[in-house]
Amino acid sequence: MPTFHRIPVRLKSCRYDLRIGSNHLTSLGSAVRSLRLGSHPVVLTNPTILRTHAPAVARLLSRSGFPVRTLTVPDTERSKSLPALSDLLSRLADLDRPGRRLFLVLVGGGVVGDLGGLAAGLYRRGIPYLQVPTTLLAQVDSSIGGKTGVDLPQGKNLVGLFNQPRLVFIELSFLRTLPDRQFRSGLAEVAKCGVIRDPEIFRFLERTSVADLRRDEKRLGWLVARAVRVKASVVEADERETRGIRTILNFGHTLGHALEAATGYGAAYTHGEAIAVGMAAATLISLRLRLIPASSAERLLRLIPHLGLPIGIRGPRPGISEILRAMSHDKKWQAGRNRWVLPTGIGRVLVRRDVPERIIRSVIEELRAGFKAGS
Amino acid sequence: MPTFHRIPVRLKSCRYDLRIGSNHLTSLGSAVRSLRLGSHPVVLTNPTILRTHAPAVARLLSRSGFPVRTLTVPDTERSKSLPALSDLLSRLADLDRPGRRLFLVLVGGGVVGDLGGLAAGLYRRGIPYLQVPTTLLAQVDSSIGGKTGVDLPQGKNLVGLFNQPRLVFIELSFLRTLPDRQFRSGLAEVAKCGVIRDPEIFRFLERTSVADLRRDEKRLGWLVARAVRVKASVVEADERETRGIRTILNFGHTLGHALEAATGYGAAYTHGEAIAVGMAAATLISLRLRLIPASSAERLLRLIPHLGLPIGIRGPRPGISEILRAMSHDKKWQAGRNRWVLPTGIGRVLVRRDVPERIIRSVIEELRAGFKAGS
Repeated sequence: MPTFHRIPVRLKSCRYDLRIGSNHLTSLGSAVRSLRLGSHPVVLTNPTILRTHAPAVARLLSRSGFPVRTLTVPDTERSKSLPALSDLLSRLADLDRPGRRLFLVLVGGGVVGDLGGLAAGLYRRGIPYLQVPTTLLAQVDSSIGGKTGVDLPQGKNLVGLFNQPRLVFIELSFLRTLPDRQFRSGLAEVAKCGVIRDPEIFRFLERTSVADLRRDEKRLGWLVARAVRVKASVVEADERETRGIRTILNFGHTLGHALEAATGYGAAYTHGEAIAVGMAAATLISLRLRLIPASSAERLLRLIPHLGLPIGIRGPRPGISEILRAMSHDKKWQAGRNRWVLPTGIGRVLVRRDVPERIIRSVIEELRAGFKAGS
Repeated sequence: MPTFHRIPVRLKSCRYDLRIGSNHLTSLGSAVRSLRLGSHPVVLTNPTILRTHAPAVARLLSRSGFPVRTLTVPDTERSKSLPALSDLLSRLADLDRPGRRLFLVLVGGGVVGDLGGLAAGLYRRGIPYLQVPTTLLAQVDSSIGGKTGVDLPQGKNLVGLFNQPRLVFIELSFLRTLPDRQFRSGLAEVAKCGVIRDPEIFRFLERTSVADLRRDEKRLGWLVARAVRVKASVVEADERETRGIRTILNFGHTLGHALEAATGYGAAYTHGEAIAVGMAAATLISLRLRLIPASSAERLLRLIPHLGLPIGIRGPRPGISEILRAMSHDKKWQAGRNRWVLPTGIGRVLVRRDVPERIIRSVIEELRAGFKAGS
């Protein structure tokens, strides 16, 4: 039997497991069988994963006696749209027959997970689905917590649902084919989990090189399980983001989201890279407000480049006014203020709405000038 | 103070009130205020109601200090589509600004309620909404229970959510402008509530003429409150249709849905008329299976025409094979069988999957030949 970590997620509305392991795909069929999700699995994936890992997932389900069908969506932000959602729902209806009980198996990164989780929530007022994330970012972050959604021209993730999966199946060997930049991008969310809740994660990252981590799936498994546990515990405490607790997951995201928006969600910053810059910004703000000891701030600002992630804003664009404008369009913007998740140490954060704009401006300028630790 | 009935709906996920009264619209503003739904109400309605009752609702909300915006959708089944949903979500985003908290006020019949309730569930992963139903059918049935949805070319209501409103506000005076055929159509669902759960409703309908009922809002209020209570109690026992209890609300719907589908959801049958024929069919099946005393079946078959509702299938089309084919496409079709809700008396039903096809065929032929009690 392949070994894996099993982490239960206990929510008010439901309960499900996160399973994390290397080469434990063989256990997927029986896991799905015992959950009694339905009769007809539909694998949703993207063209890249269709060439690499999706066939293995489909084969496993076939061997367990399921008649598997596979659908693909392009792996671009354009798939996170209402036209793509309509198209997917229509293709699900085409596969449906009286008496069939469809369920979705989402094999891919954040796009497949966000779109597919939404479609699963809507088709016939909800069919079961499971997440089989194939990027580090999806494994430690987007596949967990039940947030699904698509974008509108007016903004990101404006249409969506909280819809929990019935199982999150994390296969670490899938990460072997992940490009290095994507792997590092995922590490930004892992580091985030360390800063907001778990100093052990932080210390581990400080003492490990990215190259070593990619070679050692056992240690990677420990790290992913640890990060996933942070996310799961925050989601357990605040499933639908109504109690303010889930806010801490937005550490690094206030500036990060604005940076992504101001650069048109292009290749300039991956999500993890934007979050990395955002974490640096929040740390500098904490320093200015004397919320964090200088030694902790230094460790934080050293870890980001250690993981091969950016700590500064490169180039003249976007300008400060573009960044501030993007920040004022943030979903969490209220009464002329952004919400900032600020570190007070390694493993501790607090949420503030009263950061003076002059401090935000000056920190952004500092990041643009090329913060020393990052150069 | 205007008097009204207040019926609480207590669900696992939430709790809200149904308020039923005549000329009690003045209490809407304070009710909405005290629920703290948000800062910016968006009234969603259709062109007919925009000319009649929607302005009064908007005015009331304005007087309570809310900046009201109004959106309309055509009152046709075509509005229950993914393109119409996309369009509505985009119009909501256009009205949105950082710091605003939108909520939806759905003033109309089933189309506005089904589309608007779905949009409310999806916009920003859910904004609050309230139902202000303006047809009898919506007041006693579709506005209660949280079922929302749109159609796909492949089938009705294939895309949707269970999404409960925060308040259902039933204003009986809105029904004064309702065409007679629509009023009678709503009475079919009221009669259904009598048959499945509440003999008092049934006896009341037997002793009342439709014309009298339209003239007497006090008695109408009693009837609507009573029907609504049946629906609410069934929904309380089985919020998401997972426990088989909610099935009894489908009394009359097995053949009814098929009749609507086989006639292209056109003018041949309103929903209530199709359900009326379906209730007659279920009663005849019960008789054949000796599940119901002949005297109860006779009362049932007499009540339908007494309410001005059809009891037979007119004309050569749809043929029996078209009807049976439509039935086999029903969402509830399983293992070659339809599910039938069959009356065993006035106020009692049971659910059967084993009705022999020859009985179904012969009952449909009987309905087509023009069942005596209905001619």
